[in-house]
Amino acid sequence: MQQLDTRAQSIVAELREDLQSGATELARKTLDQVLAYLDREQPDTGTLRTLLSELQRARPSMIVIGNALARIKQRGSAEPDAVREAIIDIRAQLRDATGAMARHALQELPDTPVIMTHSASSAVLALFRSLAKDKKPFSVICTQSSPGFEGHTLASALNGLSVPVTLITDAQMALFVGQADVVVTGCDTWFADGWLINKSGTHLLALAARASGTPFWVLADSFRNSDADPASVILEEMPGDELRAPSGRWITTRNVYFELIPRGLVSRRISEQGVSSCPVGPRP
Amino acid sequence: MQQLDTRAQSIVAELREDLQSGATELARKTLDQVLAYLDREQPDTGTLRTLLSELQRARPSMIVIGNALARIKQRGSAEPDAVREAIIDIRAQLRDATGAMARHALQELPDTPVIMTHSASSAVLALFRSLAKDKKPFSVICTQSSPGFEGHTLASALNGLSVPVTLITDAQMALFVGQADVVVTGCDTWFADGWLINKSGTHLLALAARASGTPFWVLADSFRNSDADPASVILEEMPGDELRAPSGRWITTRNVYFELIPRGLVSRRISEQGVSSCPVGPRP
Repeated sequence: MQQLDTRAQSIVAELREDLQSGATELARKTLDQVLAYLDREQPDTGTLRTLLSELQRARPSMIVIGNALARIKQRGSAEPDAVREAIIDIRAQLRDATGAMARHALQELPDTPVIMTHSASSAVLALFRSLAKDKKPFSVICTQSSPGFEGHTLASALNGLSVPVTLITDAQMALFVGQADVVVTGCDTWFADGWLINKSGTHLLALAARASGTPFWVLADSFRNSDADPASVILEEMPGDELRAPSGRWITTRNVYFELIPRGLVSRRISEQGVSSCPVGPRP
Repeated sequence: MQQLDTRAQSIVAELREDLQSGATELARKTLDQVLAYLDREQPDTGTLRTLLSELQRARPSMIVIGNALARIKQRGSAEPDAVREAIIDIRAQLRDATGAMARHALQELPDTPVIMTHSASSAVLALFRSLAKDKKPFSVICTQSSPGFEGHTLASALNGLSVPVTLITDAQMALFVGQADVVVTGCDTWFADGWLINKSGTHLLALAARASGTPFWVLADSFRNSDADPASVILEEMPGDELRAPSGRWITTRNVYFELIPRGLVSRRISEQGVSSCPVGPRP
């Protein structure tokens, strides 16, 4: 295995340490950095192979990044020119997937929909931008999404698009879900058996949607697919001090960012390939 | 109807404006203030009757206060001495009810229980104090309970009792409920048909408890009983700026403090009279 130079190491470190960006955004950023690295440093095949492997290991719970890198490696060649071409290709696939999901979702939505969401998925935001661009009237109910408050960023983005948005605490999800025509969230990982991983709180919203009879759609392109066993997954935990809670010898603050949502709570999966109705059934 | 003097008016105003205290605490405070008023001002029967009626109307969604005042009025006399006696009696009933609920719950808990709760009910805290006083080992999982963060106060109180407490965001409820032996919450209003009102987020916790097979107990003494129709209840909403969210022409921030929890999600109601198993069934 080749030793990585400082510039290559810093791409790996940045990927490892960026806890703000969503998985798709982070995948795009990382691919852009590898492209720039290829242009500037002209690394040999061995170094490039090592870099791709290290990047693949950097964020095991962000399946999009791993899948994007796997697709690049699947091309079979670690020649710089072949890798450059593969990266450009995969970046386009990532962008096109988001656009295709928005188009599929648009076709399924009723007129003037009230759409509820949790956290701030880039795929869901792309859908909102498509609706606004097409001048289709709609409104949004979004949660604050504590402790990172991504909901604030989403509400500001919607405000910028002149889209009415109702912003609530995470605790008010059950109170408001009945006012939505549909719940739409993003997805970090989609397992073969229909379970998924998304931002903590999504499971609660899915349960509340089920209880109120509101359809629950998940935007999950094929970059989210995982063959792993959901039970084997380690969920990323962030520092507890993000909660700004009191400290004390007997107090443990937990800050698990992602959670498993059981199959049977999602009514539709929307991927770049289209819309699939999900089998609704009891928790296995 | 008598005109109220300044001192009586200020008791009503304080009750109306105190958005921090829980219902039981607020009921006790108000009764204490009426006692002090009786001693200092020696009001006539007409004034006293008016004061009690105005207090009863001040916080319609805090049933404990209304019920405590109704029990005082039920004694039939608005003579100052009779009212004084009634208030002392009702205050004792309120205190005794909390103690009795803790005793009943103690008998039902397994050894070294992990108890999960949401918000900071004075009845639940009394149960925790009883467990600590009896030197029974237990631990607690509690939510922050945004936007008021009562969970921080509760965690600090448990820390002071040397009780291990895991503090989580509201969004992590579904992640942690499976680690609890039982969920125990307080209750603001208990309706005749088994629905209840409690702090927003309780419905989500009840749904998550049901999904994970964790029993859900509610501490609700008879001062919480209401004959009203749950559908007719207006839920108290607090100023939206408590969410510290971005503002904008298209952003509406909602801050509904209380919510209805449908019957069928509560496994046991514990009142001062004992423990009742609740009929588990579909949402009516």
